Amino acid sequence: MPNLSQKAVTMPESPIRKLVPFAEKAYAKGKNVFHLNIGQPDIKTPDSAIQAVRDADLDVIEYSHSAGFPEYREKLAEYYRNTGIEITQEDILITTGGSEALIFGFMSTCNPGDEIIIPEPFYANYNGFAVMSGLNVVPVTAKIEDAFALPPIEQIERKISEKTKAIVICNPGNPTGYLYSKEELERLRDIVQKHDLFLFADEVYREFCYDGAVPTSVMNLSGIEQNVIMIDSVSKRYSMCGARIGALISRNKEIMTAALKFAQARLSPPTIAQFASQGALETPQAYFDEVVQEYVQRRDIMVDGLNSIEGVFCPKPSGAFYCVAKFPVDSTEKFCQWLLEEFDKDGNTVMMAPASGFYSTTGLGEQEARIAYVLNQNSLKQAVECLREALKVYPGRKIK
Amino acid sequence: MPNLSQKAVTMPESPIRKLVPFAEKAYAKGKNVFHLNIGQPDIKTPDSAIQAVRDADLDVIEYSHSAGFPEYREKLAEYYRNTGIEITQEDILITTGGSEALIFGFMSTCNPGDEIIIPEPFYANYNGFAVMSGLNVVPVTAKIEDAFALPPIEQIERKISEKTKAIVICNPGNPTGYLYSKEELERLRDIVQKHDLFLFADEVYREFCYDGAVPTSVMNLSGIEQNVIMIDSVSKRYSMCGARIGALISRNKEIMTAALKFAQARLSPPTIAQFASQGALETPQAYFDEVVQEYVQRRDIMVDGLNSIEGVFCPKPSGAFYCVAKFPVDSTEKFCQWLLEEFDKDGNTVMMAPASGFYSTTGLGEQEARIAYVLNQNSLKQAVECLREALKVYPGRKIK
Repeated sequence: MPNLSQKAVTMPESPIRKLVPFAEKAYAKGKNVFHLNIGQPDIKTPDSAIQAVRDADLDVIEYSHSAGFPEYREKLAEYYRNTGIEITQEDILITTGGSEALIFGFMSTCNPGDEIIIPEPFYANYNGFAVMSGLNVVPVTAKIEDAFALPPIEQIERKISEKTKAIVICNPGNPTGYLYSKEELERLRDIVQKHDLFLFADEVYREFCYDGAVPTSVMNLSGIEQNVIMIDSVSKRYSMCGARIGALISRNKEIMTAALKFAQARLSPPTIAQFASQGALETPQAYFDEVVQEYVQRRDIMVDGLNSIEGVFCPKPSGAFYCVAKFPVDSTEKFCQWLLEEFDKDGNTVMMAPASGFYSTTGLGEQEARIAYVLNQNSLKQAVECLREALKVYPGRKIK
Repeated sequence: MPNLSQKAVTMPESPIRKLVPFAEKAYAKGKNVFHLNIGQPDIKTPDSAIQAVRDADLDVIEYSHSAGFPEYREKLAEYYRNTGIEITQEDILITTGGSEALIFGFMSTCNPGDEIIIPEPFYANYNGFAVMSGLNVVPVTAKIEDAFALPPIEQIERKISEKTKAIVICNPGNPTGYLYSKEELERLRDIVQKHDLFLFADEVYREFCYDGAVPTSVMNLSGIEQNVIMIDSVSKRYSMCGARIGALISRNKEIMTAALKFAQARLSPPTIAQFASQGALETPQAYFDEVVQEYVQRRDIMVDGLNSIEGVFCPKPSGAFYCVAKFPVDSTEKFCQWLLEEFDKDGNTVMMAPASGFYSTTGLGEQEARIAYVLNQNSLKQAVECLREALKVYPGRKIK
């Protein structure tokens, strides 16, 4: 057979999936595994979304407009206006998940060989989208001691080269849960403007902000209206990850025209899931209030629990439903594998995502792991106790 | 703002959509437009597909496995085995439409700058997928006088260069409706084997073969099992274009491993539509028999009708639901626009897709148009009569 492509070789495997074979061994031994490794929430999808599917006319499941149903875009624009983001349906392209929005965004703006700057640790699949688009990721390291705040702006600016085309952020952040302040975003805005770059912001966790924190959208940074591309998705907001409905949003008409050409080539985003997504827009505020309250409690159980374990450090995030914790171990890759293979507490163990896969710089994050607090409170309490016991007996324990 | 990418510039606009503004003018004038320009069938989606959605547990619309639900893949493998294609679920990756399957296939096998050989006229969106993957399309011209049969194999072989990585076919073909014989496919097989290339076959119209013709799948060409990638989709087979469920199929484990990495980056194909697609597998044979019978009648009305118009030539295809006809006009681009802007017969007119957009070689297909016979028989009869009258009065009429 002929050789495969270079992309096939460099395409990273998901860091979350490396441990799956070990999890399978754990199941085979009859262990119960608390899955803190993946952001699949257990929260119920809103009734209005499900009802919209049940009520939909599916006689012929037809293509939608390549940019998504006009009616859905209209109502989605209204949702944004209600959250203080002044856009119209023309600024919205409905995509197959946030993933496709990023791919179309990268391909519309960047040439193969171009560089994109991303604060690390970052959502690991950005690497995959960069490989697909032929881009080079240039990381700027955010530190766990700073709770993963935006690195000093001079540090970011030093990374800007002739090849830099865009800066990419996720806010609130996956995997850190960090919510950028308005001031941090304005510092970013200044260098985006100064160097005439594109600014991509993945804002899919917008509704998950805690302790009264209010998120600032990049769409509201004045002076770079033509440079900003927002990525969104219904996956987390309405706990409907499987719908695969996202959006690419920009006030820049040229970007929207280019992205539409990519969208036309793949014909249309999923039709049935658009009915669900349109229905989801009817979700009452009470749903979000309840979900946020639940996540605050889960976060507190998880983060306070982790910090009560000797040698563990976990900054308390203000958004999303992830945190990154530092463990007193030789390597979280080994520790996470050991948890599945060797350890159990009363038949229970924990699966986490080693953080090294979320860093682009080799060697970073080796003592850190990402935890998704997407399980019920009782499970989270048990998971913390598992980790407490595990660290007492883990042979690779190491304080530093 | 910064410049957009080269891809944004070279990404082709869909040839089918160029006429949309003129169609909108026609509607505004109150004309009825027979849409022969797009392959959106009016056939009802099978009940079992719709029922599967209604019955699905949608409490939490979760991600599926990145390769698609194992149960769906299992049943799909069984469908293929029933059609004489011996594969297992491990040879199947469920994708977001056939489009994504081609993109993942191209990116897994070809490097930017590589060449792919495609008999023209071909499905225009292959151009878009090639641009996304950085590939160069090398066309080999099939002729309308030969009913768009496979061009002589020496002609194809002459196009093979150091850069050639794959040959791409669509069988039965969009836009031609031509069904390749086993002998034609074996000739292709021989040069694929000789030059160690990949062979992509888009077989989404498999169920639409007429006059007793039986399609040969590339999966059944012996000797190139490791070189073959089949693209499939539920869109046309079950008249559910909006589901966006397709498949990449290969017995080559390395390709499947690479494609899975691309699939993992985008997390999962649409969940709800996978329920529909799994349900669709229960569709009784009677459904297809009825659909095929209907399409044969539609094809005969359309093709016989076209050939009864002086100066028009349309080979009668054995598959899919398209045909390409040659018209006695200066340019079908102009003629199709004129039909919408200037012409009507008792308030009716016709929208067709000028064929030049389906050729990669500039200047070809200028007198040809693609017609999708996806309307009811009465509409098709009226559409033929529209064309007959139109050609009597079209100012750009030209016999040659």
